[in-house]
Amino acid sequence: MIEFTLLRKSKKSAARIGILKTPHGEVMTPAIVPVATLAAVKALRTDEVAATGTQMLISNTYHLHLQPGEDVVKSAGGINTFMGWSGPSMTDSGGFQVFSLGWGKDLGVGKVTSAKAASAHHPDKIEKAIAKGNQPKHVTITEDGVKFRSPLTGDEMFLGPETSIAIQGKIGADIMFAFDECTPPGATRDYMARSLARTHRWALRSLAARRTKQALYGIVQGSNYEDLRKESARFIGEAEGFDGFGIGGDLGESREGTKRILKWVAPYLDERKPRHLLGMGHVEDIENIMAGGADTFDCTVPTHYARHGIAFTSKGRVDFTKAPLLKSKEPVDRACGCPVCTGYRRNYVAHLFRAGEISGGAMLTVHNLWFFNGYVARLRERIKKGTL
Amino acid sequence: MIEFTLLRKSKKSAARIGILKTPHGEVMTPAIVPVATLAAVKALRTDEVAATGTQMLISNTYHLHLQPGEDVVKSAGGINTFMGWSGPSMTDSGGFQVFSLGWGKDLGVGKVTSAKAASAHHPDKIEKAIAKGNQPKHVTITEDGVKFRSPLTGDEMFLGPETSIAIQGKIGADIMFAFDECTPPGATRDYMARSLARTHRWALRSLAARRTKQALYGIVQGSNYEDLRKESARFIGEAEGFDGFGIGGDLGESREGTKRILKWVAPYLDERKPRHLLGMGHVEDIENIMAGGADTFDCTVPTHYARHGIAFTSKGRVDFTKAPLLKSKEPVDRACGCPVCTGYRRNYVAHLFRAGEISGGAMLTVHNLWFFNGYVARLRERIKKGTL
Repeated sequence: MIEFTLLRKSKKSAARIGILKTPHGEVMTPAIVPVATLAAVKALRTDEVAATGTQMLISNTYHLHLQPGEDVVKSAGGINTFMGWSGPSMTDSGGFQVFSLGWGKDLGVGKVTSAKAASAHHPDKIEKAIAKGNQPKHVTITEDGVKFRSPLTGDEMFLGPETSIAIQGKIGADIMFAFDECTPPGATRDYMARSLARTHRWALRSLAARRTKQALYGIVQGSNYEDLRKESARFIGEAEGFDGFGIGGDLGESREGTKRILKWVAPYLDERKPRHLLGMGHVEDIENIMAGGADTFDCTVPTHYARHGIAFTSKGRVDFTKAPLLKSKEPVDRACGCPVCTGYRRNYVAHLFRAGEISGGAMLTVHNLWFFNGYVARLRERIKKGTL
Repeated sequence: MIEFTLLRKSKKSAARIGILKTPHGEVMTPAIVPVATLAAVKALRTDEVAATGTQMLISNTYHLHLQPGEDVVKSAGGINTFMGWSGPSMTDSGGFQVFSLGWGKDLGVGKVTSAKAASAHHPDKIEKAIAKGNQPKHVTITEDGVKFRSPLTGDEMFLGPETSIAIQGKIGADIMFAFDECTPPGATRDYMARSLARTHRWALRSLAARRTKQALYGIVQGSNYEDLRKESARFIGEAEGFDGFGIGGDLGESREGTKRILKWVAPYLDERKPRHLLGMGHVEDIENIMAGGADTFDCTVPTHYARHGIAFTSKGRVDFTKAPLLKSKEPVDRACGCPVCTGYRRNYVAHLFRAGEISGGAMLTVHNLWFFNGYVARLRERIKKGTL
């Protein structure tokens, strides 16, 4: 199980400093949780991830269920042993990926999304896919759960609260999430209200399905609707047995939106329990996320952008696919002490990207994780000093 | 420049122990030289390569000429600074790649090879390409050098002794190679004799073209013909100014062939100068290479096979693309102390390959380099003990 200690609350915002104790060690919060979708932070070994200051990883129940399958992970001794990660770990419930496969007419959304969006963990891509009007992909939602077809084998599959918790139980991360419906931006209020009621029923079924000593977080949904968000926070906050809370779904198209949603829900959530914001963490979001009172948040930004040649630096983003960098003898970021910034120069990293060498993506993944962890650590200091 | 100290000669074979001093440090010989084609050992940073016990790297003049261009490497301060490699470095002459683009009817070979083979550094692939009867690719050989078209841009390009040495001068590795024609297996004796005479004239022109303090190795060719190999070794061995010798070309279709060729040429090469065997180094070859008196040899085997899921272990090859390994809790190699074998298990590495995670290839690259370097180190001990 886990134990959360609230050490300090900011007077300037809802930001807070805490320690999240897990069977695999402690997390100083607020903390960013990089994404290890398939039990791997793409391009890196987990010992390399640890060296970037990363405290906790989140893996993907849906993806691991498809490949290699939860039984393989369990037989390996659980996800930590499997991936050689000695730090705290989480798994999401799998709902996000399943639903992003099949948002369609039955959700009250005018347009539908593609299977491709399922591979994306980031809402931006899903919005784009919806905008393109792609075809639905055999996703059927009932009270029981969700039926869908495996994109790998075409086989019919099912995920519901009990199956999600059973799979997460076999995967064995320190923290699991309740099975929820993650509704897309643009869902009608009517659909949202019905979906939310079902998500709440699924939350109770997730609690009842737990057979392990892993922690379980309930998930607050409700899209951009104040009354629904508050209703959800009240319901999940009062449900007995959750060890922490996830805040998911459409977190607002604007940065202010996230802040507003956190403000709506925070008062209903026991402040002695940790709060995790699901799937959000652009650099520009992070201060708002913390100011809103989230303790942890996961996002693919540092790793995903790295593999596409984008470094986050103390002077902003740098695109390493651009030719002029071939002549730069500067490190990726002068202000950074990571092994990439201390050992290599921009000209080399730019060359690797242009030549298609995969080590370029690995190098920027190291740097970006280092940068994000450093940035979050500095914001923690600001909370302590009372300036955030 | 370089300095070679011959420390010990085996009584059992032509094997020898030495120290090769370069401006970037010493190499204990015999040593394997992993290939950093485009100034990168594929999948790894150079500091990770150094941690595998790798002593020296060889980069590819032809590939670096195409991308990023030697001027970029020079402006970065030379290849060592460019790639963040503090150890000794070599560049090949570029001949191998150019010729492998265009071996055709004019070489007296019945069948021709493909541009695809040019990307391969390993003779196996070229043989296969020749066997497939692919089309020739606009390569014209004259006394001056070789005209060909860039596979990247389609532009007409030229490489000859003077241009190769000029490019290698800008790249700035510790050791350069003379420009030679690397003839394919199956060339007629008549073609080989004419080609060899030209390669010798190119060797003298390469010597005359040197304007830097970099070391320059002459290359012995002559295919499988005893008289041509001996003639070549005598010519290159007597040419004034070479700091060491490369042995290149068709090194025999059988393992015994390599041994035989080394036996033919060694007596003509000043034993006080280092000898490098070009482009060969399967595990099963290494003992013969050393017994034949080579001090260094480069090959893509450990890195190329790693990216295709093959680990070399104390118990032989292991293929990580195979499903049964998903259940193995053993390390990649029980006898290995590398960061992959001490931190991860076979089930995880197999999962990474099956899931298409590039970290799998990087992990086996680390292990395979560690394994090859360890194996070579043990053979050095056997030479010292007189059992090789």
